[in-house]
Amino acid sequence: MQRKYQAKIFVTLRPSVLDPAGVAVQSGLKQLGYDNVERVRIGKYIELTLTSGDEATARQHLEQICHQMLANPVIENYRFDLIEVETQTGVV
Amino acid sequence: MQRKYQAKIFVTLRPSVLDPAGVAVQSGLKQLGYDNVERVRIGKYIELTLTSGDEATARQHLEQICHQMLANPVIENYRFDLIEVETQTGVV
Repeated sequence: MQRKYQAKIFVTLRPSVLDPAGVAVQSGLKQLGYDNVERVRIGKYIELTLTSGDEATARQHLEQICHQMLANPVIENYRFDLIEVETQTGVV
Repeated sequence: MQRKYQAKIFVTLRPSVLDPAGVAVQSGLKQLGYDNVERVRIGKYIELTLTSGDEATARQHLEQICHQMLANPVIENYRFDLIEVETQTGVV
C-alpha cells in the first residue's frame, strides 16, 4: 500500500549568515515609506508530493532530499511539515 | 503603544503558471534515485518584523507590502501568518 504525502519545506539562511537580498528588500520598503519593517530574511518555500509506504520512510526520504538538494547545510537550515493526502490500495 | 509582530510570508506561483525550477529539481531528484517525488513547486518564504499600533494595521501594511514588493500578483499568490512578539510601552 502506497500513501501520498504533501510536504511543505522551509529553507532559511542560518541566523549568522548575511542576507543581502533581505537587506535590499528592507531598504526598498523604507523608500516606499514602510520604515516600520525590520529584520527581513528571504528563504525558499518548496511544496512537493511524495509517495511512500509509511510516514517514517517519507520523513527519512524528505530529510535526505533537503540535505542533498534543496538546502545548502553549510549556510541554510531547513524544516518541513508533512501531511498525508491520499492512500492508494492495490486493486484486488 | 507600539507592538512588534513577526510575519511569515509565503509567496507561491499560481497553479496555472509553469515552474521550470520546480521541474528541474524534480528531474534532479529522479536522477538521484528519488522517483517517488512529484509536483515540485518552488516559492519564496520571507520572515520580517513589523512594528505597528495594532494587529489590524499590521495586517493592512503587510497586505500592501506583499502586493507592492514581495509578490508579483500577476503570476504569484501570497499568504502570511502574523504573531505578536513584543509590546513596547512608552517610558513614564
